[in-house]
Amino acid sequence: MVEKPQIPSQQPASAEPPGPPRSSAPTSADVARQAGVSRATVSYVLNNTSAVRISEPTRRRVHEAARELGYVPHAAARSLRAGHTRIVLMPAPDVPVGTLYSGFLNEFQWALSRFDYTAVQYGSVGVGGDDAARAWAELRPVAVLAPAGMGRRGIGILQRSGARAVITLGAEPVEGAHALIADHRAVGRVAAHHLRERGHRRIGVLMPREEGLDAFAVPRLAGVRETGVEAVALPVAYDEENAAQVVAHIRELGLSAVFAYNDEYAMLLMRALQDAGVAIPDDVAVVGADDLMLGRLLRPRLTTVRLALPSGQELAEFVDRLVRTPPAGPEIRDVLDASLVRRESA
Amino acid sequence: MVEKPQIPSQQPASAEPPGPPRSSAPTSADVARQAGVSRATVSYVLNNTSAVRISEPTRRRVHEAARELGYVPHAAARSLRAGHTRIVLMPAPDVPVGTLYSGFLNEFQWALSRFDYTAVQYGSVGVGGDDAARAWAELRPVAVLAPAGMGRRGIGILQRSGARAVITLGAEPVEGAHALIADHRAVGRVAAHHLRERGHRRIGVLMPREEGLDAFAVPRLAGVRETGVEAVALPVAYDEENAAQVVAHIRELGLSAVFAYNDEYAMLLMRALQDAGVAIPDDVAVVGADDLMLGRLLRPRLTTVRLALPSGQELAEFVDRLVRTPPAGPEIRDVLDASLVRRESA
Repeated sequence: MVEKPQIPSQQPASAEPPGPPRSSAPTSADVARQAGVSRATVSYVLNNTSAVRISEPTRRRVHEAARELGYVPHAAARSLRAGHTRIVLMPAPDVPVGTLYSGFLNEFQWALSRFDYTAVQYGSVGVGGDDAARAWAELRPVAVLAPAGMGRRGIGILQRSGARAVITLGAEPVEGAHALIADHRAVGRVAAHHLRERGHRRIGVLMPREEGLDAFAVPRLAGVRETGVEAVALPVAYDEENAAQVVAHIRELGLSAVFAYNDEYAMLLMRALQDAGVAIPDDVAVVGADDLMLGRLLRPRLTTVRLALPSGQELAEFVDRLVRTPPAGPEIRDVLDASLVRRESA
Repeated sequence: MVEKPQIPSQQPASAEPPGPPRSSAPTSADVARQAGVSRATVSYVLNNTSAVRISEPTRRRVHEAARELGYVPHAAARSLRAGHTRIVLMPAPDVPVGTLYSGFLNEFQWALSRFDYTAVQYGSVGVGGDDAARAWAELRPVAVLAPAGMGRRGIGILQRSGARAVITLGAEPVEGAHALIADHRAVGRVAAHHLRERGHRRIGVLMPREEGLDAFAVPRLAGVRETGVEAVALPVAYDEENAAQVVAHIRELGLSAVFAYNDEYAMLLMRALQDAGVAIPDDVAVVGADDLMLGRLLRPRLTTVRLALPSGQELAEFVDRLVRTPPAGPEIRDVLDASLVRRESA
């Protein structure tokens, strides 16, 4: 449990009051006056319109005036003219994200900004399906990376609102939208293939009870089964007491190997196995997934499945192409790559 | 290194083409026609205007027509009338976030949505200072949680763009803005106070070399020093080889205790100490921070500093109050609470 601390409120003695917004917010008319040009010229220059030829000195004057006055164009006003913004909307992760995903997000946002898009992450907490789609559509994004759970109707709402590219993220494509497919069966297949090669024919598969992880755990289990090994699903909560019960169950069943869902659950399981006097890998082999640093710090060192995503640059180019020249039909891409990192635990 | 997989592109045989946006996007005029009311009435109903009295059946007719046609109001158009949107902009974390922060973010976004705000996370990768402020201002947020690094000028740009509450997040307030202060000196103080009580007068303090962590590591070190113990800064990279060198250094210096920055660095250090045959806590005591689950899985179990943030509900109320009735001067709040979780490693 996280404690809720008291929040003391302090009033510093000297500081400029932030107050309500000043009424003197600079407008494009102010910029035009200061630069000695028309408002239309200001608009052409600041919106980087290529249709109208404007001399370099004039451009420079407008930019300088805008900077001096602190004028900021209004994305909303631009979007009313264009029918959409330059916003690329994507779901804010609602679970803690690891280094793989956060590194990818950074790179992707940076790459999008170089194409002059604004990457915006939007929480999907407490809203789902059509409600989420309507809330997202209000921002008039030019492109959306939508959770596949948004469904066909939600996708349609976003497309009708002016989004030129709607791309779902998930295990399966959604009709009518482009799709980036993260097929987690591959993770289970890679783990089970290795265990099968090491002679295991019947393996336990940890299935976290924690909310939101089913979306990954279920396909990983299916992937294990695709290799032909017998898979025994072992539900587990992320605490030591529960892990000790799972270990007792593993011994009753006489399982010789476990695919532990990911490296963190593998660490939990290894601790419980070792506390119970079970030797790893001789009595029970363990395979994790994610290739976190902590796997290298365990003894024995953890054998794991490394996941990889495409580069952010590659994905930004994909989005930009779909926006600029929408193809005739949906494009579907597999983005998740899984490979074995063999160490000592299996 | 993360490998970059090839992305195979597939064209599914049967699926409705997503194509460019349909020209038949429903407008408020369509809604008005379908509901048999004026466009003004549609606008009053969908913008929930309280100034105009509209009967419940009419309201219902408008909402039903909007739903049937799939009409979504345009946040940008509303923002042009109001001068700002209902967007609360906050920085997207650019480092992997732990359960504490991601849980807090979820709760905060959910609480904001109940006040009819839209929480939007905005990447700050590759932009800084005034550039970031200008990019953020384009979205015309009604409130901004800005990194303190945005500075006085950036804050001013956001305020002039119409943001009614600009609240910085950081170790120090920024002149002219409200501030949520996360004072990480408290974390170092709590760790060092415990070690001091256990008789340690000279302790090592791990200082991660990884980018972006200085902002937390430097104040934590300062907090250690505030307790009167002698602190020896030990720069460390997050890999085993470097950790082994740090252990050699700890032995040369004859240090009897280390504050390890956080639980993950504590795990790295404990592994390197144990691999070198150093007993924990008898030869060297170790304190982490964050109270992650992995600390409970280490042997000996990790003594750590637990951090706590205010509830998301509390913070959403704070933001809403600043937006609705901007106070005369800036409000400054301490939000970080630190407390010791004593286990076996120190």
